[in-house]
Amino acid sequence: MAEEVSNKQIIFRDYVTGFPKESDMILKTSTIKLKVPDDCNDAVLVKNLYLSCDPYMRPRMQKTEGSYIDSFTPGQTITGYGVAKIVDSSSPKFKKGELVWGFTGWEEYSLIKSTDSLFKVQSTDVPLSYYTGILGMPGMTAYAGFYLICAPKKGETVFVSAASGAVGQLVGQFAKSMGCYVVGSAGSKDKVDLLKNKFGFDDAFNYKEEADLNAALKRYFPNGIDIYFENVGGKMLEAVLNNMRLHGRIAVCGMISQYNLENPEGVHNLFNLISKRIRMEGFLVFDYYHLYPKYLEMVLPLIKSGKITYVEDLATGIESAPGALVGLFSGRNVGKQVVVVSTE
Amino acid sequence: MAEEVSNKQIIFRDYVTGFPKESDMILKTSTIKLKVPDDCNDAVLVKNLYLSCDPYMRPRMQKTEGSYIDSFTPGQTITGYGVAKIVDSSSPKFKKGELVWGFTGWEEYSLIKSTDSLFKVQSTDVPLSYYTGILGMPGMTAYAGFYLICAPKKGETVFVSAASGAVGQLVGQFAKSMGCYVVGSAGSKDKVDLLKNKFGFDDAFNYKEEADLNAALKRYFPNGIDIYFENVGGKMLEAVLNNMRLHGRIAVCGMISQYNLENPEGVHNLFNLISKRIRMEGFLVFDYYHLYPKYLEMVLPLIKSGKITYVEDLATGIESAPGALVGLFSGRNVGKQVVVVSTE
Repeated sequence: MAEEVSNKQIIFRDYVTGFPKESDMILKTSTIKLKVPDDCNDAVLVKNLYLSCDPYMRPRMQKTEGSYIDSFTPGQTITGYGVAKIVDSSSPKFKKGELVWGFTGWEEYSLIKSTDSLFKVQSTDVPLSYYTGILGMPGMTAYAGFYLICAPKKGETVFVSAASGAVGQLVGQFAKSMGCYVVGSAGSKDKVDLLKNKFGFDDAFNYKEEADLNAALKRYFPNGIDIYFENVGGKMLEAVLNNMRLHGRIAVCGMISQYNLENPEGVHNLFNLISKRIRMEGFLVFDYYHLYPKYLEMVLPLIKSGKITYVEDLATGIESAPGALVGLFSGRNVGKQVVVVSTE
Repeated sequence: MAEEVSNKQIIFRDYVTGFPKESDMILKTSTIKLKVPDDCNDAVLVKNLYLSCDPYMRPRMQKTEGSYIDSFTPGQTITGYGVAKIVDSSSPKFKKGELVWGFTGWEEYSLIKSTDSLFKVQSTDVPLSYYTGILGMPGMTAYAGFYLICAPKKGETVFVSAASGAVGQLVGQFAKSMGCYVVGSAGSKDKVDLLKNKFGFDDAFNYKEEADLNAALKRYFPNGIDIYFENVGGKMLEAVLNNMRLHGRIAVCGMISQYNLENPEGVHNLFNLISKRIRMEGFLVFDYYHLYPKYLEMVLPLIKSGKITYVEDLATGIESAPGALVGLFSGRNVGKQVVVVSTE
């Protein structure tokens, strides 16, 4: 008979308006049998090691219909990306003891009833937590968004907002490696220092200290922006539109500045799309996972040789998960926000 | 010695805010010698036959810097597209008596000091005025915007705003000829009738009679919009964003609803760009004129065989030009607004 163990879970309390609070999530302890039930084919029971806090989780906290991803269900465990170890498997694809990353639950142990969205961890001579970041969804997001949507050319000027985040720090480094001029914006002096000194951005600024974003961008890009990697939306997008160059490209990855507003802001200056022949294109990483092996081929050597750097903000213990997620929306994290559930 | 003749001109009075008025333009009569001055190489002196009233002329009425096109100069003649006959030429490319279309002045006779933007009229067995519309700039705009920016596929759903205008009526007919489902919006019952009965749109509606544009679009496109040909901006764009389908495309051609506003509206619902992976791309016809011969090859047979229809709104006499242009912004015109200066 299968062992039954205690299982701490983070439960989604109810739909949220405005900024999420820690109390929107509840810690609950239940028990779980460490065995895939007999009636589940293609399922795995995993021990979660690292959980990923990502901006897209905020829209899931409100009731939306027809979105690309389901809302969280009140009363149910939060779900999201994570790294986990297979404890039991009814899937021919996964064996006990293997490491995977993909969609899992915010709890110590999860029964994952479909293994379609799980990837095997290929390389273990890099930090395992990287599979929530540079080697996981945010890495693929940066790769697809920058190389495919932005179609960058050597010498072009690139602006990245939320630039020290899980995706932004990679976009900046990818752009530098292509010979682009790269400037990033972030929300604190520490983050700006990180961008300039650790990630090798040509320049960076704290958007909270700029009364006039339009003027700030003009200062950093006197000849305009060829490529904007959009993570924030709102006023920053408005200012960027005024500072784009002819035939510029905007990869729309996220709009985190809007997620907590009850009344999202309208965006002005869209006429620039015409006068400057700008292409503005939204994308979702889900459409690009078939390129994951190709991405690993590119990025693993860069990590191992130290040519690319990845900064994580690790919160320890599943109890810290609600605070870590909430902190993402006030910009408390520095780098990719991860929750360490277990290191074993 | 060259003949000197009287020359009625439409003078731009001063920069405009809000809706332009007829009195923003002044009729002036001067004289002109019907000869290219000796110090002008590559110049032509033309007699203007048809002048084109186009929405892009509104932004030229305000002082803007770094735009794709110069503002009008207070005290100077309005400039714009037209069809003209060469009276004298110092250019090896053009001979006296030839017909041309391109950038000219709002006056009876114009000295055009650079012939770079002039095209020869190739076919005279169609109405000459068509070179201000289907065979001129608006035609090329519809062609480039629909076929190149929208990248349409048979069976897709297409929405066109300002659909009975110079560009919109063509986009709808091009889309129908590709086997798309096409709905247009316009601002009067007459225009809606035109769309349905003359241009063969599958359906059409009067946006002024729809209190809820979002609901209207949902009615006409229960499964969503694959392609939006954007001529108006503002609230319509907001509603369209909510009704786009996955991987939809928006060709941004104009935003006429915003041109007369002192405070242009902010556009909400841009998050749809991400969740639906929408490509939104602005374009200007100037980038596509090298395709003009190819376009003529396609469209001339369609006109001659009656497979494509073009509706013009003709105002007679250069004196009528200010009223015709102003009428464009209140939607008074039905079809392409042209000013007939002379039929000879």
